[in-house]
Amino acid sequence: MNGARALLSTLVGAGVDVCFANPGTSEMHFVAALDDVPAMRGVLCLFEGVVTGAADGYGRVAERPAATLLHLGPGLGNGLANLHNARRARTPIVNIVGDHATYHARYDAPLQSDIASIAGAVSGWYRSTARADDVASDAADAVVAALGPPGCVATLVLPADASWSESTTGPCPPRLQQWASTVSPDAIDDVAKVLRGGERTALLLGGRALRSAGLHAASRVAATSGALLLGETFPANLERGAGIPAVDRLAYLAEMAQAQLDGVRHLVLVDAKSPVSFFAYPDKASDLVPPGCTVHTLVRPGEDAAGALAALAEALGAPAAAGVPAPAARPDRPSGAVTTESLAAAVGATLPEGAIVVDEGNTSGLFVPGATAGAPRHDFLTLTGGAIGIGLPMAVGAAVAAPDRPVLCLQADGSAMYTLQALWTQARESLNVTTLVLSNRSYAILNMELHRVGADAGGPMARRLLDLTDPELDFCDLARGMGVPARRVENAEDLATALAAGFAEPGPTVIEVLL
Amino acid sequence: MNGARALLSTLVGAGVDVCFANPGTSEMHFVAALDDVPAMRGVLCLFEGVVTGAADGYGRVAERPAATLLHLGPGLGNGLANLHNARRARTPIVNIVGDHATYHARYDAPLQSDIASIAGAVSGWYRSTARADDVASDAADAVVAALGPPGCVATLVLPADASWSESTTGPCPPRLQQWASTVSPDAIDDVAKVLRGGERTALLLGGRALRSAGLHAASRVAATSGALLLGETFPANLERGAGIPAVDRLAYLAEMAQAQLDGVRHLVLVDAKSPVSFFAYPDKASDLVPPGCTVHTLVRPGEDAAGALAALAEALGAPAAAGVPAPAARPDRPSGAVTTESLAAAVGATLPEGAIVVDEGNTSGLFVPGATAGAPRHDFLTLTGGAIGIGLPMAVGAAVAAPDRPVLCLQADGSAMYTLQALWTQARESLNVTTLVLSNRSYAILNMELHRVGADAGGPMARRLLDLTDPELDFCDLARGMGVPARRVENAEDLATALAAGFAEPGPTVIEVLL
Repeated sequence: MNGARALLSTLVGAGVDVCFANPGTSEMHFVAALDDVPAMRGVLCLFEGVVTGAADGYGRVAERPAATLLHLGPGLGNGLANLHNARRARTPIVNIVGDHATYHARYDAPLQSDIASIAGAVSGWYRSTARADDVASDAADAVVAALGPPGCVATLVLPADASWSESTTGPCPPRLQQWASTVSPDAIDDVAKVLRGGERTALLLGGRALRSAGLHAASRVAATSGALLLGETFPANLERGAGIPAVDRLAYLAEMAQAQLDGVRHLVLVDAKSPVSFFAYPDKASDLVPPGCTVHTLVRPGEDAAGALAALAEALGAPAAAGVPAPAARPDRPSGAVTTESLAAAVGATLPEGAIVVDEGNTSGLFVPGATAGAPRHDFLTLTGGAIGIGLPMAVGAAVAAPDRPVLCLQADGSAMYTLQALWTQARESLNVTTLVLSNRSYAILNMELHRVGADAGGPMARRLLDLTDPELDFCDLARGMGVPARRVENAEDLATALAAGFAEPGPTVIEVLL
Repeated sequence: MNGARALLSTLVGAGVDVCFANPGTSEMHFVAALDDVPAMRGVLCLFEGVVTGAADGYGRVAERPAATLLHLGPGLGNGLANLHNARRARTPIVNIVGDHATYHARYDAPLQSDIASIAGAVSGWYRSTARADDVASDAADAVVAALGPPGCVATLVLPADASWSESTTGPCPPRLQQWASTVSPDAIDDVAKVLRGGERTALLLGGRALRSAGLHAASRVAATSGALLLGETFPANLERGAGIPAVDRLAYLAEMAQAQLDGVRHLVLVDAKSPVSFFAYPDKASDLVPPGCTVHTLVRPGEDAAGALAALAEALGAPAAAGVPAPAARPDRPSGAVTTESLAAAVGATLPEGAIVVDEGNTSGLFVPGATAGAPRHDFLTLTGGAIGIGLPMAVGAAVAAPDRPVLCLQADGSAMYTLQALWTQARESLNVTTLVLSNRSYAILNMELHRVGADAGGPMARRLLDLTDPELDFCDLARGMGVPARRVENAEDLATALAAGFAEPGPTVIEVLL
């Protein structure tokens, strides 16, 4: 068999059986080998930002990596923004970048570029395979690296001749994973002592601490100690809804986050980073830790967050039933005009059990978390790295990872335009994605930021650069152009009806609302 | 004034008065300063690949740089593919990447990434401004670096605090350019001797040698010496049509290029690279220089190609009128089905004087060069770096650079989907772009390459990854969704009529044909 087939067989053997792909000539042997390894599902995306955003969504839901297939440096470049988000989410991804044949590199052909340099900005692991006999072993290493914990983008550069040449080794068996449950007894003792001390303490939960087990344990800790629970601002995958302890997320706006942390004397990081302002602003602090507050680390990335929180609860003598799950509670179906409030109510009133919410609603999605706090249990995936254009692709990946769960994509209009091509893949793969496009006809967050950074917002040129009204985007036309049925709804009743229908019916649909 | 205003004033003073922009929060002071420096035209693009492709098109036509405005590492990543093409085209671009405030970097906020590493792959010049007092001087340096010659992508990283802080220096006057006309007398002597020797010699023309003056001089050389004239495969801007000496381009397919070069004993590079295969193929040569052929360099990048060719013509005693301009000749307006041949005839029959042809037609555009060889004089811009997704953005830039010239964008369907957002900017700016979408419903070039690389093309999975029929893209819906009028034409007569109307009417239009 050739290197490509050995690679695919190795990936499938290690549990990597989906490949989001946008191939070119140097990847043709990889593509051809898909027919030899039918357990690998190739999913064509029409742009690389869709490939990488889908791989991110897949990894966040499946908790194992998908593979990508990208075409040399430019293809990697097109996928870089969503790999940046994946890096921040610590999503496991086996990021395969096809390259020229090894001997061809020195000719500096038109597509030649410095792949290592580009990949360096997003990769936790990087290797360029030297020859066909290494490719299977390298792929096995890449899977291990991607899984971590913590997960990372493992970039494997695949020269064309490593793909097409004979592999004398064949596939490589999966490596044994290092799955040791790691908690730090010293950290648990330290934090227990802090909590017993009675000073105002907040636990900042991130990463795996925001899954059900972690939240239940954290809630026991909070109920017993009086500690404040906060979630990181942009979680990779927050499990929430009726039956799961709720956690407020730290606000995006620094002023609001500072208010949440006001008076906190001890901040305990649980698989989370110490809070910093998303952007810098003139004369405002970057570090959001309050003055006089001591920062403690209970769980580092890659450690066992749920295990450490459970051990902490035990150390505090918290009863097993001390946690406070969120009660089931839905808003009524709204009526009247579609507003940011009523659209949130429409989502809260209709969200089905087991849904996956992909949130790139930005300013327009502000009220959705509140309106869905008591909705049936669901996953909530957010924009971890600030690189907009993740919503539609992440919905692709989530739906591929969980074909039986409805996916709701809350998608702001400005951000939607970065990776709109994802809709085509949703149609091709008949993915159960209901996309709610929130059209406010502007980069609304930038209008806000224009004021917040202290820039003069008064000029017509500046306003025009943040305005999307001339011409108006029609997301129904855009969706239909890629084979996805779409409708615009004009009031909140129709929106709730359309959402419920979207969740119930198979395949993708787009609902556009004007705000 | 603040740093942002000093920067914009400096750019305008140096002749850089267009900025293609997709800003974020860290760029808000730059955006606000646009109202203070009205000579700078800000052009909003909805995706960074449009920003950079437009800057490339602008630079190729205007022969001076546009500025970009990108948002940190992810924004640069999204723009990287078309910067790669610009690097290969040696297009001057002042590539401005907004960054966090300098003091904010150490907090590793979500959007923090290694901008230098990403930019390294495409930048001929790179600097991160340290403070507001440096920004004007750095911008002046960036313009000089971008202009070269040869031109390059000059990346200027602009921290937010360098933008918003007071500039005590104010704008920087433009630097004096090094415009010395550089030719190498030794190289001219060497090549003249070769040509007098009578062995079969080819001149491979690239870069600036493919503009009118260079072609006229090269044609004198060829007529006098019997040398073969060839153009590089993918020129940045080839001037052609009636009255300009024609030059066959070296073929994309290595086998065909080898046939063109067969028997050549001396290959003279005139602002061109020694020919190599675009991709490597099993058991095929990468280096396309025929065995026994000696390579000579007449003109290096950045040297004066037209001057060197004229000097060579003089050295050979070529009469001033020895060149052979292409005769005026148009095909008849075609009739019948739309085919790759008849669409080429429709273009050839209707292309107006002074048009700019942006060619990302790929396999479907194959016959257009032949059908337009005798059309009125026009510019022909191609995909220099192999990173697809350049056509629609490059048309934006060309139309901004030359508002009075009609732009024809030949756009393959698969490639169109990478940077489709360019259509919105075409509508917003009322650009005179007629886009002909060539829909063959497949990555046709990859179907060909699948065979050429020796991969088995028989499998249904492989074929499905190269096929765009399920679902079918409707480019009329897509265009209308972004405010561009569009129609599908079903026969060659209607196509010619639609093209003529598109050229004659102001503003953008999309014509889709099914092949």
